[in-house]
Order: sequence, then structure tokens, then C-alpha cells
Amino acid sequence: MQNQTLLEQLDSELWLRGSEIGDRYVVDWSATNACKPDVVLRPRNTEDVAAMLNLCHAAGQAVVVQGGLTGLAGGATPQPGEWALSMERLNRVVEIDSAAMTITVAAGTPLESIQTAADEAGFRFPLDLGARGSCLAGGLVSTNAGGNQVIQFGMTRALVLGLVAVLADGTVIPARNKLLKNNSGFDLKQLFIGTEGALGVVTEVTFRLFPQKPYLGTALCVVESFAGVVSLLQKMGRELEVVSSFEVMWPDYYREALRATGINDPLAGEQGYCALIETEGASETAAEHFLATLSKAMDEGLLLNALIAQSSADVDTFWAIRDGIAELLPEYGPAANFDIGIPIALMERFINETLQELKLAFPDCRMLVFGHLGDGNLHLLAGTGREQDVRAIYDLVYRKIAGVEGAISAEHGIGVLKKEWLAHSRGAAELALMRSLKSALDPAGILNPGRVV
Amino acid sequence: MQNQTLLEQLDSELWLRGSEIGDRYVVDWSATNACKPDVVLRPRNTEDVAAMLNLCHAAGQAVVVQGGLTGLAGGATPQPGEWALSMERLNRVVEIDSAAMTITVAAGTPLESIQTAADEAGFRFPLDLGARGSCLAGGLVSTNAGGNQVIQFGMTRALVLGLVAVLADGTVIPARNKLLKNNSGFDLKQLFIGTEGALGVVTEVTFRLFPQKPYLGTALCVVESFAGVVSLLQKMGRELEVVSSFEVMWPDYYREALRATGINDPLAGEQGYCALIETEGASETAAEHFLATLSKAMDEGLLLNALIAQSSADVDTFWAIRDGIAELLPEYGPAANFDIGIPIALMERFINETLQELKLAFPDCRMLVFGHLGDGNLHLLAGTGREQDVRAIYDLVYRKIAGVEGAISAEHGIGVLKKEWLAHSRGAAELALMRSLKSALDPAGILNPGRVV
Repeated sequence: MQNQTLLEQLDSELWLRGSEIGDRYVVDWSATNACKPDVVLRPRNTEDVAAMLNLCHAAGQAVVVQGGLTGLAGGATPQPGEWALSMERLNRVVEIDSAAMTITVAAGTPLESIQTAADEAGFRFPLDLGARGSCLAGGLVSTNAGGNQVIQFGMTRALVLGLVAVLADGTVIPARNKLLKNNSGFDLKQLFIGTEGALGVVTEVTFRLFPQKPYLGTALCVVESFAGVVSLLQKMGRELEVVSSFEVMWPDYYREALRATGINDPLAGEQGYCALIETEGASETAAEHFLATLSKAMDEGLLLNALIAQSSADVDTFWAIRDGIAELLPEYGPAANFDIGIPIALMERFINETLQELKLAFPDCRMLVFGHLGDGNLHLLAGTGREQDVRAIYDLVYRKIAGVEGAISAEHGIGVLKKEWLAHSRGAAELALMRSLKSALDPAGILNPGRVV
Repeated sequence: MQNQTLLEQLDSELWLRGSEIGDRYVVDWSATNACKPDVVLRPRNTEDVAAMLNLCHAAGQAVVVQGGLTGLAGGATPQPGEWALSMERLNRVVEIDSAAMTITVAAGTPLESIQTAADEAGFRFPLDLGARGSCLAGGLVSTNAGGNQVIQFGMTRALVLGLVAVLADGTVIPARNKLLKNNSGFDLKQLFIGTEGALGVVTEVTFRLFPQKPYLGTALCVVESFAGVVSLLQKMGRELEVVSSFEVMWPDYYREALRATGINDPLAGEQGYCALIETEGASETAAEHFLATLSKAMDEGLLLNALIAQSSADVDTFWAIRDGIAELLPEYGPAANFDIGIPIALMERFINETLQELKLAFPDCRMLVFGHLGDGNLHLLAGTGREQDVRAIYDLVYRKIAGVEGAISAEHGIGVLKKEWLAHSRGAAELALMRSLKSALDPAGILNPGRVV
């Protein structure tokens, strides 16, 4: 009844109800706890979002913000009683400023469209991740998305210069900015980056663009020990002009990914940690320098083997091994899928101990480790194939995270699915401060309630 | 009387009063509105800061946080009735983690000590500015300091991985982190970066370190037009491996700086905009590539002249011209000293119009323009030498900033001296949100009251 009154104040073109609501609004890519919302609000612009939130705030109607629903933490999955606020119609490149090297987009613009627009304007937008065709700008910002080039360009936070956000009560915060430097008062945009929609709804974003570089170098390297991997990371940092990616696959992961993808081992069976390294270059000698740097590391005994991609097909093959997790996931059945952060100095011991403890607790547990080592961010897949063990596996690993001042989520965020473990990464005072912020910005608690805090 | 009671609860070694209070606590480098505080609190560590703020909060005693007092916005200058909380004793490198490439320091550690410690450990800390010997880590974080390498490494915000802050009521927020990626809940450290001590006192910081690169290239270039400067910036971005600095001096500034410093013109009188460009490199051909890139730009007619530093003495000379402002400032007498931000596409017109309007309003006004063009951040010095004109000059320029969505402060912050103009860079909703944050984190308003908001 109350809902009906609320909806009557909005153009009927701006919402869906009941059977009009399709499956895309019921669950994110975690595929957990699907729930059909009563209403889907479909704003066209910032003003619509402001009007809708103003009404919902006055009526105490809870709202869940939805972008591409590619999140893995359940943040965009409706909870019972929530209306969905879908940002999909805010799909527009607002402006490319070639002098400032910025692109401004509405929050519903897919990542792939941003990349294409940047590319066509002669620039590069360096944020990239597997969900590029589906994930939307607002979600990238709200979750502070990572990806494979964080080591060079930082997380999404580092790429956002300005944004427009709408607070829970409909107040518009036009924190627009195209400047690399702006210390004119508190940098309010930070409130809306990585806070998973709990403090406001991002409706427009201005991102930094970067020059395109003519040379991209990609190499697959084998290193005997974990200590060697760390040495290699530092050596590449010193000796290459730029390290764009530094991904590492543990030996088991490399073997399993080859098997699952059916790719012939480019490294011809050499055993060890496998590092996927990318660099970029502007000079004519960039390719030569990459080869010389890797050859030197091989002469010094740091590398057991190394292979530089000779074609874009090679690049695709190297990355297909790294991305073999997509093929492996269904094979493993119900399993815990981690995106943990661990300081590099503690990483080897943490992983060894964790794998041992998992094996002890779950003798038939299968485990794979790989990830963005250069960023201290590893993915760990661990499961027995039995649904009932998944929670206990999460619990065992997250409990260990506290001991190394690690992150229970380096990339994917907390949403609702990791909330019970947040205290393993954050202390009581920090959690209290998060709640204070939430209360200050959304006193009625109608916006993404129960996400993060 | 109340003060006396408060102080009795603290070890007498932890505070100064009356004649014990030296001149260093009365005013920042703005040299405006000096005021001797009644008491200087001198904590040794985070726990002392927490205890002191807890007492002050309970008693309603206002506190101004002091680092190296090198700020230019009056933020650290005491206001009548405020006690100073000096961070100078928290001077300690806590840890260098070579694997994670981080340095953790107490907030009272001078920038120069951080640079030296990083250097000795074989790394590079890329934040650098003129006040390096005096400014302290906590102030760098609280003001989100910039400097000359923002174009490559970002502002201080981009270098901070974790920190410890104390809220106005003494609550310690241990937002420590060594990870490049950490999405475990709201990123609380952002609340204390660039908020000028209004939301909390930073007591410890973990910064990112970077690999040292063997080649540093520095060049002084002359370009005929402003459009040429923008083309050069973009060309260097595409064709160099890395652009570390891109500083520009307007023709008048270049001439005046040579005169004031007594340096012989290395460019032999070529007239135009002067760009100071730095790059860094790891490969043996880096120097060659820098030369080839500049030669090509010259062949294409983009550069009228260019000179690559052949020695560290040359590097020092080039930078001494850029830093000639230090010699010029006293000559100009009372003048307005801007650190404004302007989107590059609007910059030439903005500067031309502003200089014309200033000349019209103040016919004997002398004006100089230079700055971090690659970041959209210019310094403008404008003055008649008469104190009574300074405020009107500030007012004229700041009013124009609103029209270009610019920043009234790109680097130095708002403090108290720019507060009346903040509305030219931020809208009413943004200012209201800043005040909400202040109320949520410092409800009694005892911490750096009246700064920023």
C-alpha cells in the first residue's frame, strides 16, 4: 500500500513490478541467496536517482543499488523487502577531455564501452577485468575494483578524479573534478569509492586516461622457490622501465590450469612457480631491453626458464592459463573462493601453514593458489566439493588472516557474504567508525542496508 | 584553572607553558596571525596523543595539531584559546619492509629522514618538496602534499598504504596496512588524508616505496605557444617511458627568475614558455631515447630549443630557475600567492583573462605564472607591493575559479586563510557534507576547530 503511494509519484516508465521483473535483478555473480525485489527502479539520470531516493528516504523504503551485478560478495543481491535501484540506463559517455586526459561517463556505462571510447580517442583506460562486458562504471567505483594492472596504475580509486553521488536522502553531491591535484577541502569522492554503495549512489564518474604505448611485453617465467619469486619481482621493478603486471601461479595451479584449458605447456614441463610478467614501452629498444633483462635473470640462475610472447596469440595463451580458474571452478564444485591480501614477507609461510591446516581439517580438500603477487593479493580456491564444508573453510582461512595483518578481501569487497569475518581484518574501533559514517550519511539506513557494516 | 586541572593529569614532561613556549609554536610559514598558545602538549607516541585528546575532549579544550609548521594556509597557527599538540617527538622510522616495499614512520618524522632511510635501504620515496628538512610525515598526510613528481606517483594520498589516527575523543583508529590492495570494509585512512587534521590526528604512517632507477633525465625546453606546451606534454607522455615531472614557466617568470637568481640563461635568450621535463629510466639506452625523443620534437618544430642536463650541477641549475620563486617572493613584497588548479583545456584563456583583469583593477600589479602544468596546477604570484590590495587580488582570482570548475587550492590546502573562498570550488551540498563529517567525528569541535569548514 505504502509502496503503491510511492510509485504513484514516479512516472510509470521509471519502474518495474511483479512479473515485469526479469532474472537479472535477483542475484549477483556469487549466485547466492537469490531474491526477487518487489520493485525495480530504473532512473535515467542523476535527477531521477535523487527524486527516487528522496521518496524512499521519506517512506523508509530500503533500496539496493544494482550495476552489472558482477560482484561476488552478495552486495547487489536484493534482501527481502528491498527495492532494486538499477543504474543500467545511465549508460553514456558524457565527455572525453583530450587536454586533461579524462573521460567522464554516467554510472551505468559498461567498462568495455569506457575502454573502447578511450581507445578511439587515442588514449588508454588501464582498468581491466574479466567482467568487462557486464560490469558498470558505478560498480567499479563503489567496489574500488582491482584487476591485473594495479601494480602500475593502482586500484580504481587511483583512476577516479571526480564523481557525482546521491546521498540516501536524495541530496546530490556534485564532486566533479578533472584535476590531478585538488586540495580544496575534504576530498568527498573518497566516501563513495570502495564503500559498496552504503554511503551514497555514484551516478557519474570522471576517470584519468593514459597515453597509449606502442610496445607491450608479456613473458611467462619459471622460478624455483617463493624467495626467488620475490627477488624476481624486485629485480623487474628496478630493471624494467615499468612493470604492468606481475601474476604468479603456484606449481599445482599451473598444472591444473593447463589440464583444464587443454593448453600445451609453453614451458615444456619445467617445474616451479610460474610468473606472468608484463611491461610496456615507448622506445624502439623496449623489446630488446625486456629480452636482455630476462636473459640476465636467467644467466644469474634466478629463472629456470622464460618465454616472451611473440604474437598476440601468445599473449592470449599466457593469460588463458592464468585465467584457467574459470574452467576449474565448476570442476571443483562447492568451494571457498578467496581474494585475500597478505604482506609479501609473510606470504609463503601463511600459504604453507594454511594449506596444511586445511588438509588436516579436510583431508580430501583440493586447493589452488595464484594471483596478483605484486599487489600482495592472492586467490585461493579450496573445497571438498561438499557444500557443507564451505563455510568452515572460509572460517579457517579468515581466522588466520588476523595474525598477519592481512585483508579478508583485497579486491571483491565485503558485501553481505564476508561481513561476519570483517572483524578479522578490522578492529572494533574501525568497525565503530564505519558505523558512525553510515549513520551520518544514511541516518534512516535505507541505502544498501546491511552491506559491509 | 580548568587548564591547570587538565595539565595535572599529565606528566609535566609532556607539556610546556608560558615562557617555556618558543617561537616555533606560534605561526606557520604563512607568517600570518601569529598567536602564542597557552600550552604546548608534547606527546611521545600514539598512546600519549590518545590520552591528551581524551582529556581535552572531556574538558572542551580546543587543540591545534602542529607538525613542521611549513603549511601556508594558517592551519597549524594557534587561534586564541587553543592548545598546541606538537607531533615533533614522534620522530622515528618504525620499520622498512623490503619485501612489501613499505616504510612505516611515526608522524613526527621529517620528510628528509624518510627519503634518507628509503635510500639507504635501496629504495626511493618519491615525495619531495622544498620544505623537506622541516615538514613532518603527519603533515604531509594531513595536507595530502603534492610536489614535483605528482604526474608519475600521484599526491601523498597515492603513497599512503596505512596509518594510525586518533579521533578527537582519544579513540585510536589503527588503520594499519601494507597491502596495495585492501577492500576489507571502508578505507578509513582516506578520512585522515587531506582533511588538515580536522577529523583526526595521524600518529603513524606506512608509505609505499619504489625501486631506484639508474637513469634520471632532466631537460629544459622552449616552446613558442601554450598550445605547443600541451602538445609537448602529450607527446612526452606517449613517447617517453615515464614522465616524472612536467613543470612550465611562463616567459615573464623565466626572465624574472634568471634575474633574481643571477643564473646565466642556459637557453641563450630563446623566448617562449619554458618546460622543465624529467624522465627516469632503467635501460642502458634510456639517455639515448630521451635525446632522440627531444630531437624529434625539435625537428618537428614543436621545440624552439632544448637542453638536456649533462651533470647533476646542470640538474640543480635547471631546478634553481624553477625554484627562483623563493628569491622573488621577498622582492615582490605583500602579494597574493596562489596554488590554483585549472583544467588544461581552459588554462591559457583563464590565465590571460585573469592577468588582464588584475591589470585593469590594479594597474601596477606585477604577476608571475609557473607551476606543475602536467597536473593542472599553477602557481600565480600577483601583487602591488601594498598589503591592502592582497585580499582583493585573492578575491578577484578565486571568483574566477568557480567559472572553470577549478581548485582554489591544488596543493596547500584551505586552513583558515582560504576558508572564505572555499565556496568557489565547492557547492553548498559539499560544504554541508564536510560539516556532517566534522560533526560525526568531532562532535565537541575541539580538534583544529575552524580549519577547512
